[in-house]
Amino acid sequence: MSEREYHLGDSVPETPDNPDGLAPWTDTRVVGTRHARVDAYERVSGTAQYPHDVFLPDMLYAAILRCPHAHAKVLRVDTSAAEKLPGVRAVITGQTPGVDRPWYERGGRAWSRLFDPHCRHEGEEVAAVAAETPQQAADAAAAVRVEYEILPFVVDDQGALEPEAPAVHDGGNVVGEPAVRERGNLAAGFAEADVVVERTYRTACEIHAPMEPHGSVARWDGPRLTVWDSTQGVFAIQEGVARSLGLPMANVRVIGHYMGGGFGAKLETGKYTVIAALLARMTGRPVKLFLPREDCMRVTGNRPGNTMTVKLGAKRDGTLTAMEYTSLGSNGAYPYSAATSTLAAFLYRCPNLRATDTTVFTHAGKARPMRAPGFPQCAWALEQAMDELAAKLGLDPLKLRLANLADVVQGRDGPIPFTSNHLAACLEDGAAAFGWSEARAAARSEGPVKRGVGLAACFWGYSGGPPSTVIVKLFSDGSANLNMGASDIGTGTKTWAAMIVSEELGVPLPQIQIEHADTATTQYATPSGGSKTVPSDSPAVRAAAVAVKRQLMAMAAEQLEVEESELELGPGEIAHRTDPEKKVALSALEKLGRQGVVVGTGYRNPNPENAITWPFAAQFTEVEVDTRTGEVRLLRFLAAHDSGRVLNRLTFDNQVFGGVAMGVGLAMTEERVLDRNTGKMVNATFHTYKVPTMMDVPLEHTSLPIDRSDDLFTSTGAKGLGEPATIPTAAAIANAVAHAIGVRVTDTPLNPTRLAGMLAKPAEEA
Amino acid sequence: MSEREYHLGDSVPETPDNPDGLAPWTDTRVVGTRHARVDAYERVSGTAQYPHDVFLPDMLYAAILRCPHAHAKVLRVDTSAAEKLPGVRAVITGQTPGVDRPWYERGGRAWSRLFDPHCRHEGEEVAAVAAETPQQAADAAAAVRVEYEILPFVVDDQGALEPEAPAVHDGGNVVGEPAVRERGNLAAGFAEADVVVERTYRTACEIHAPMEPHGSVARWDGPRLTVWDSTQGVFAIQEGVARSLGLPMANVRVIGHYMGGGFGAKLETGKYTVIAALLARMTGRPVKLFLPREDCMRVTGNRPGNTMTVKLGAKRDGTLTAMEYTSLGSNGAYPYSAATSTLAAFLYRCPNLRATDTTVFTHAGKARPMRAPGFPQCAWALEQAMDELAAKLGLDPLKLRLANLADVVQGRDGPIPFTSNHLAACLEDGAAAFGWSEARAAARSEGPVKRGVGLAACFWGYSGGPPSTVIVKLFSDGSANLNMGASDIGTGTKTWAAMIVSEELGVPLPQIQIEHADTATTQYATPSGGSKTVPSDSPAVRAAAVAVKRQLMAMAAEQLEVEESELELGPGEIAHRTDPEKKVALSALEKLGRQGVVVGTGYRNPNPENAITWPFAAQFTEVEVDTRTGEVRLLRFLAAHDSGRVLNRLTFDNQVFGGVAMGVGLAMTEERVLDRNTGKMVNATFHTYKVPTMMDVPLEHTSLPIDRSDDLFTSTGAKGLGEPATIPTAAAIANAVAHAIGVRVTDTPLNPTRLAGMLAKPAEEA
Repeated sequence: MSEREYHLGDSVPETPDNPDGLAPWTDTRVVGTRHARVDAYERVSGTAQYPHDVFLPDMLYAAILRCPHAHAKVLRVDTSAAEKLPGVRAVITGQTPGVDRPWYERGGRAWSRLFDPHCRHEGEEVAAVAAETPQQAADAAAAVRVEYEILPFVVDDQGALEPEAPAVHDGGNVVGEPAVRERGNLAAGFAEADVVVERTYRTACEIHAPMEPHGSVARWDGPRLTVWDSTQGVFAIQEGVARSLGLPMANVRVIGHYMGGGFGAKLETGKYTVIAALLARMTGRPVKLFLPREDCMRVTGNRPGNTMTVKLGAKRDGTLTAMEYTSLGSNGAYPYSAATSTLAAFLYRCPNLRATDTTVFTHAGKARPMRAPGFPQCAWALEQAMDELAAKLGLDPLKLRLANLADVVQGRDGPIPFTSNHLAACLEDGAAAFGWSEARAAARSEGPVKRGVGLAACFWGYSGGPPSTVIVKLFSDGSANLNMGASDIGTGTKTWAAMIVSEELGVPLPQIQIEHADTATTQYATPSGGSKTVPSDSPAVRAAAVAVKRQLMAMAAEQLEVEESELELGPGEIAHRTDPEKKVALSALEKLGRQGVVVGTGYRNPNPENAITWPFAAQFTEVEVDTRTGEVRLLRFLAAHDSGRVLNRLTFDNQVFGGVAMGVGLAMTEERVLDRNTGKMVNATFHTYKVPTMMDVPLEHTSLPIDRSDDLFTSTGAKGLGEPATIPTAAAIANAVAHAIGVRVTDTPLNPTRLAGMLAKPAEEA
Repeated sequence: MSEREYHLGDSVPETPDNPDGLAPWTDTRVVGTRHARVDAYERVSGTAQYPHDVFLPDMLYAAILRCPHAHAKVLRVDTSAAEKLPGVRAVITGQTPGVDRPWYERGGRAWSRLFDPHCRHEGEEVAAVAAETPQQAADAAAAVRVEYEILPFVVDDQGALEPEAPAVHDGGNVVGEPAVRERGNLAAGFAEADVVVERTYRTACEIHAPMEPHGSVARWDGPRLTVWDSTQGVFAIQEGVARSLGLPMANVRVIGHYMGGGFGAKLETGKYTVIAALLARMTGRPVKLFLPREDCMRVTGNRPGNTMTVKLGAKRDGTLTAMEYTSLGSNGAYPYSAATSTLAAFLYRCPNLRATDTTVFTHAGKARPMRAPGFPQCAWALEQAMDELAAKLGLDPLKLRLANLADVVQGRDGPIPFTSNHLAACLEDGAAAFGWSEARAAARSEGPVKRGVGLAACFWGYSGGPPSTVIVKLFSDGSANLNMGASDIGTGTKTWAAMIVSEELGVPLPQIQIEHADTATTQYATPSGGSKTVPSDSPAVRAAAVAVKRQLMAMAAEQLEVEESELELGPGEIAHRTDPEKKVALSALEKLGRQGVVVGTGYRNPNPENAITWPFAAQFTEVEVDTRTGEVRLLRFLAAHDSGRVLNRLTFDNQVFGGVAMGVGLAMTEERVLDRNTGKMVNATFHTYKVPTMMDVPLEHTSLPIDRSDDLFTSTGAKGLGEPATIPTAAAIANAVAHAIGVRVTDTPLNPTRLAGMLAKPAEEA
């Protein structure tokens, strides 16, 4: 199961050893099997308490009044009418004593204030209310009277670059310097090429749209604040709230036991959380503040829409000689990044490259990281360009990719090896399982309904994360408690963690209880995002369980008067390897009984130095296009993933399915529409912003794990899966559509309206 | 501050080193100062949530119907009327399916059932009800109809020994074999003696009577039970509830953040907790079950009343030659221990000794450990006998004790040294501070109001406990979180723990937040009882803080590019010892910023082998006795304590004051009265059971710490204080009264009724 492979022997030890110093599993009983989520009953029965379900005695409800303009200055706020409404307990604005404070963005700079009189996009916070009921709060917020000076705005990326464009901040609308990655000699590379393709692609801006809206409940106990937050990472929220309120971090407790989706939008502290805390402090009562769906759509983040131009040069045999890549996108009104070029720079072995990323400010809601930030956009462009190149060269798209795979990362200071890279297996095994060649050859081209197949490949440029700490406690009856700070954002984190404990300690899953995602009572973990949770936390879980196991083995050896090496731990007992007389149940370990519990602490060690760990994927799809209506049906989908070792085969499947569904949204249905005349979002509801439903996802879906442990990476050998599951999906669909009908759809969403329009034009590819 | 002393060099290392391996503090900034409790605001403002304050959505209230007879068999229970009452949701008895189960006592044997049809004392559980309101629950419990067969009973200790006494259990009323401790040759010792005294003493049975009654709130989340319990040790309750319900321990979460007093009565699982859990499971709703005060008085424990005979032989110079000690007491209807002889056996260096403890069953509520179990009773007898001996020898009672102090423990297998023993300092420094000689000489003997002074000494025969584990987390802004499983039973545990963290890490106390007493989220700790909390947990807290400190120092050394040894940690920063340019704030440690937190784990190591650690005390009091009324006023009190290093001088004072107040209760006011005709308790209310009030405690009170770190014991050098604070109090009062009026009061309570009666008889001592 654990095949080892490294590409530059120098920087990777000869004797494979991961930084955790534990031997890789050679055989597993629990890890790798299919296991339903340990909290499945709570999740489906409604007994799981999401932050939205938190109701505290004496709790007030809050609402926020937001600026209705894309760009405006607040001249005057009159709260007098709102204050007189029934049930109202507090109305705050930037003028209220003790409320005004800077608002920090990533990098530590304050780009606005909590209630900023300069509103830079539709939906900026102007006032907030706490009242006895949610309805009273909403009514009172609506009763706050505001006088605005309406200002000119820009909401499109290209327009923001115009010299006369209204500036979002002082210093022009380009965020920082355009980022340029270069290697080799681009001109020489294109001169070498036998064939060149060049085209511009566009992706629409997407909204994260999690099921549970953004929101918090805040309660003060003396000097200490407790926040229940719908978040992907309690420790990040703790830090943001503490900084904003000027509190020691220890005095801010953030709890996030369940949360209803985030996809990157719930990694950072929201103004609503700080507003809830301020209202709670002013009223002396707990305050609940959850945003209406429309506000979530407008202000809690999005995936930037990007305009990307890809120019590829290749030899007749398909060898890439040059790549020029430019990307433009907007982070909205506050700094983030709309860069996309990482995938283009490193997916293929191309010696001559220039990739340029430009991010602009616009008068629109701020972007936030969204599942594989930048990567699905780039895949949409790059992987379509590769197919166009294959067509021009008369090569099978699969073979073109296999011929150009990067076997190292072309770093600025030279090549860096991978700890593992099974992208070739993703492509080859995936193609075999999908029946790529047969399906490609058999594509139906007669009649109005066409059939085609497409594929796309990717890596995800991140693994591991900051150190995380996990504690396992084994009670004297042999049952166990697992303490980890990571949030389970619905992906099954608690389940694989319990499986690892069960693997090491033989404790059945129903006897493992889990504490997680609470800054006060659990240990530090990086936020659950960026496919970091498994690689950051699984080695820490294993190390904690092994720390318990070692103590148990020592206790048993002492009690049985044998050497530890002669013993092995089985379910519920420790037994001699050869002498059946010598064994002891965990619950009969005398020292354990005396000391009550065994506690084991496990850490995630830093990534190996001088090597890179990325997950890889190749996805394949077969589609049917009705050329009369422009409708596309996704007949089947196969997703082949190298995410290292598979911890839970069932949630692996779930995760891939979710990623593909999200990729379908990018490809076919989702688009934030801003009115150019008003700068306002016109489709801020689920009725008008189309998240794919079960009717839109592929009819048949297969996940194919390339289940090879990355033993050089960590002791569990598992890499991330969340992001790669969605990166190549949209591009694979577009390639399949192009294969079916010979039309290359360069812009998302690839919906019947757009396709029908394009089908009027002549086909351009074979 | 840390003077070292050991008595048998062989078994104690030459180079003093405690089992924790950390050098003793030589100088402290925080530890040893006076610090108000960190939770003082919550405690006095009413915002602290005691288990009694837990109100959950949809919660039901429960009540228990109890047997009104001292001994009876339940023949028939009819719940039909109760079930029909408004608001009733469940009525259970031992006949209800799924309810009947054995009830375990210490040692693991089941001596009864949850609802036992054989009721062995007044107040045994017969049925329980859950209803919408506490009133409806009480009404319904009262409406359960029970038919009893009333049986003969015995409620007095001596009576229980009679051959024809009704048996509480099969096998006779003596619990186990009478325990005998012997050394030397008793007859030879008495033959050697120039003087012999002999007298019988009696203490009344006391009730713990904590402010917060006993009770629990139980809630099920799927297969997991959460219990909020008014307890001294959440891990002990977890074990008891899990065993009783047949659940894995991990599936039972016990929380006990605040609790309103226990004194030993809240160390074990109560039937009420299991009943609340069963009712919650049956109704699918949370259930709150708190006992009425009268039930707490009858069934939740007591300090056995004891009858003790002390016979002492001594040379004319005061040297003890022989001691015979016998003790009889009852553990009530279920096994515990009414033994008292430990103090007699080891306080003084007496070569010839026989001490015998007999415990009997009676048809009365079960005894539980109560603050220094057995010791205050023995002190009442032994320390009065010593004073009688001093009078007979014409010696100062102080000098008699100093002449006979034990400098080792006379173990069964030979002498065992102390890690520290400063009883001589307690006596000498205490006497000096109290002005013993002057006051003794100046005692007023004319007129009807007499004045006298008395003293008594003690040790407490327990220190340390099972391993405990503590975690300290330092956040990236330098604030800290302390995670410890120990309960703070009102004694200031959280405060000294935070002080130790502050001592080691320089974090101000308001920036330290504490998680404690939760089996799911905190680490294991022994229950808070037996003066074990400080010795068990303080070294673990220090070790955890030091583990954090070491990581911080390594980070700073790397960042500043200097050796760790050149650095020192001050408040909020780490600085070079000599180069003022080289320093870094904790919040500026780059690695800390990257990894989010530093986590340190600390363990309590086992006690040193072959040495004993006990705390010691001597207490002095001056009293005024009105011989016309028998009224005693406590004018002043001085308590000199060797409890090793003082962690918090303020709570040291509080703890001693509380112990003395409790000793006043034993000496002067408290007595459980059982009606011999019915076997029922006749004073089960605070109106009739007299706990001392502020009007009864000494007018002037001084605590005198013999503040010497026990560096051979643990890295904090602190020994226990809770028990020794109450052990000698009653005896010192009785000795002062005897000194004032020449009458030796052998039985508690020493109240005006008893004293007035005795004053009619002629005086017997000088």
